[in-house]
This record gives sequence, C-alpha cells and structure tokens, in this order.
Amino acid sequence: MTIQVFGHTTSTFCLVLFHILKELGLSYEVVQLNSTEEIKSPEYLATKHPFGKIPSLNDDGFQIYETRAIARYLINKYQGTKTSTVLIPSDVQKAALVEQFISVEASYFTQPLSKLIVQLVFKKRHGKEPDLKIVYETREELNKTLDVYEKLLEGKDYLTGEFSLADLLHIPYTFYAINIAGESELWDKRPNVSRWWKNISERECWKNIVTEYKLA
Amino acid sequence: MTIQVFGHTTSTFCLVLFHILKELGLSYEVVQLNSTEEIKSPEYLATKHPFGKIPSLNDDGFQIYETRAIARYLINKYQGTKTSTVLIPSDVQKAALVEQFISVEASYFTQPLSKLIVQLVFKKRHGKEPDLKIVYETREELNKTLDVYEKLLEGKDYLTGEFSLADLLHIPYTFYAINIAGESELWDKRPNVSRWWKNISERECWKNIVTEYKLA
Ligand SMILES: N[C@@H](CCC(=O)N[C@@H](CS)C(=O)NCC(=O)O)C(=O)O
Ligand SMILES: N[C@@H](CCC(=O)N[C@@H](CS)C(=O)NCC(=O)O)C(=O)O
Repeated sequence: MTIQVFGHTTSTFCLVLFHILKELGLSYEVVQLNSTEEIKSPEYLATKHPFGKIPSLNDDGFQIYETRAIARYLINKYQGTKTSTVLIPSDVQKAALVEQFISVEASYFTQPLSKLIVQLVFKKRHGKEPDLKIVYETREELNKTLDVYEKLLEGKDYLTGEFSLADLLHIPYTFYAINIAGESELWDKRPNVSRWWKNISERECWKNIVTEYKLA
Repeated sequence: MTIQVFGHTTSTFCLVLFHILKELGLSYEVVQLNSTEEIKSPEYLATKHPFGKIPSLNDDGFQIYETRAIARYLINKYQGTKTSTVLIPSDVQKAALVEQFISVEASYFTQPLSKLIVQLVFKKRHGKEPDLKIVYETREELNKTLDVYEKLLEGKDYLTGEFSLADLLHIPYTFYAINIAGESELWDKRPNVSRWWKNISERECWKNIVTEYKLA
C-alpha cells in the first residue's frame, strides 16, 4: 500500500515529509485536510493525531504522527533501499552531530522563525494585521541565531559538512521567509549562511516540490 | 577518560543526562558552571556550546551539545554494554513510537511546563514575583496536554507500553512541578497520569539522583 500523508500541501511540516519521501525515492499520496474542523474531529484525534495537528502518516497500517519522529522512521526503514541519499549517517559520532543540529534547528531557528511566518504570511492570508512587537522580537532572535550559524558554517557546505536531515529541516520555513515574507535580507547579508541556503535549496527533490505544489 | 558533563546539578536538562548515564551504567564527572558569565564566555561558546546553554558533554574528546542529541548519542553508543536497560528499542516501529512521544514531550508538555516552572520556581529563587498571566496560560495548556495523556495512558504503564527515553525525558520537570512548584494536583486528579508518574519516578536511578543532588 502507498504511504499516505495526512496534511496539507502548504504546511511547512508536511513539506518536510514530502521532501524526505522524494529523497528516499518513495512514492506517496497526500490526503488533503482543508479545515481546522477536520483535524479536531473525534475521528482524526482518535486515529491520526491525538493533539489535532498535521502531519500524520500511514505506512501499510502503521500510523505515526509528529514530523521529526516520522522523518526518523522513514529514514530508519527506507534509507539506502531506493536511492543513495544519506540523511542520517550510520557512524555514531556523525549521527550525533546531525541530531545536534536538528535540536539547534528546533530550539533556536524554527521556534522564532515559525512565529515570524505566522505574523507575516498566515495572518495576512486571513486578512489580519501582523503584531509588530512579535515581528521585531522574533526577527531579532533569528538575527542572533543566524550570527551563530554564520560562524558554524565557515568553510562548510552544510551544517555537519555533508547534506543531512538537519539541513533539510530548515528548508520549508526558510523558503517561506525568503520568497513570501520578504525576509531575504536576513540570509543575504551573511555570506556563509546565504551560500548554505543556495546549496540546500537547489536540491533537485526540493525544486520538484516547489513546482509540483506551486509554492512560488 | 571519564565522560564530562558541563552544566549544573539543578538544571532539568542536565538531570536528564545524569539519569541516562546512570541507566546505562556509565560513570561521569560534572563540571559545575555556576554563573551566566561562564556559559556566555568566548571560550565556552567556542568549545562547548555556541548558543551558550547547558548541558554540553565530552566523551573522550568528542564534544557534543543539546540534551536530546546527547541522549541519543549515549544510547546509540553504550546501550546494552553495561546494563540491560533499553531506552530506544532496535525494532523500527517501536523506536518510531518512542520518537513520537519524545516529540510530544518537547512540543506539548515541556514547552508549557518549562515556562510555568520559570515563573513558580526560578523567579522565586531570585526573589521575583511570578507573572500570573503566564502561570494561568501555561497551566491551562498543560491541563489540555495531560487530558490527552490520560487517554493515551489508558491500560498502559508507560507511554509506549514499556519504559523508554520518552518517559525519562518527562521526569525532572515533573519532579519540580510536583515537589517544588506545588502543582501536584495536575497529576493527582488524573488516575492514569498519576499511576504513570509513580512508575517512572520510582526508577532506582532517579531516586539515587534525588538523593545525590539533594533535589527534595
Ligand atoms: N509538533 C508538531 C507540530 C505540527 C504543527 O504545528 N502543524 C501545524 C501545521 S504546519 C498544525 O497542525 N496546525 C493546526 C493547529 O495547531 O491547530 C510536528 O512536529 O509535527
Ligand atoms: N535546547 C537546549 C536547551 C538547554 C537550556 O535551555 N538550558 C538552560 C538550563 S536548564 C540554560 O542553559 N539556560 C541558560 C541561558 O539560556 O542563558 C537543550 O535541549 O539542551
């Protein structure tokens, strides 16, 4: 049975999963959920995600939710079976550094950036004004984080040296920030950070997603 | 060389690592950092944690930071070598469910609870008044999360059925909430949640930590 992703093709977390599925060479089907009611329904809560979020994934009867857990599951199970892309290396120390940067991404990057994107993109789409205090605060936090990234990326093409799940997890939110929220300056003014963004955003699988789901 | 943990014996994230090290039967040394200046010093930022946080860990020259990454590293490298405790199972689906509940813990449990603890415990220790708006909001969020846990724990001793890293990650913050912040009602009023807390807080290794670091 084809892998099913329950979610939405504009959700940053779903885009992460589509990207991983393509890197691993797996085919999948999107079950598009269009309303809040659908993901808060008793049936969805009982069978897909008890906290009422997207994405949730079904692989031949095995149901699992939470993006980073689904990511690790797909990699553990399928990495190396259809493509040679390595998203988590088998070497214990190399894998540890990938995990280190996944935690960095979740703690210092996606936390402020997701709040900034809510204000600048999603509120706008619903005809609401952004809360400027939140915009300034989260942009400031992100500036501090990217200053550290600028140092960490000195002389490196990717966060750990080689492309990995840690880099991939940064892509959808950064794409929204640069291409939709108009925040490209945050990346452009830092040479190492902007070189890194060029490297990761030019992955063939990601470019296919941008076209397929009409993101830009 | 003995494993070194750079941190502080009252930090919830450091306590997670001490607990894992004990479960795996590893000896370690704590390099106690007592001031903000120390963890924001150029030397600390350059060699231990570029974002200026604790913990950071050194294992025979291999330096790594971020709690959940360090946790997975220690488990990948040492699980099964000195004790029979299994924190992440080798079975792909079982491991996926552990990861699912680690993400649940980080997203819906520790996020509100850590903010509540800052208000009720750490502010008090510095002689400051808690912000009651934050206290009510985070307590409300936690109530919603624990309502879901109550359902998920029906008929189960642990989140995935068996004790795992996902359960362990809940222990230090819950201990602070119940024993220091006076928030035990949140757990007590839910039979499955309070049975679960009893199961996880009575781990021998955790009880040794409470005594050794004089937590209560
Ligand atoms: N911790 C979850 C977060 C998922 C998440 O926040 N998804 C958003 C869409 S991108 C959502 O479901 N929002 C609906 C809501 O919160 O009601 C994960 O990592 O998968
Ligand atoms: N994302 C980090 C968070 C660590 C963290 O927040 N540690 C606290 C102590 S429990 C800290 O270093 N606080 C000092 C600061 O933020 O300046 C991890 O998972 O290890």
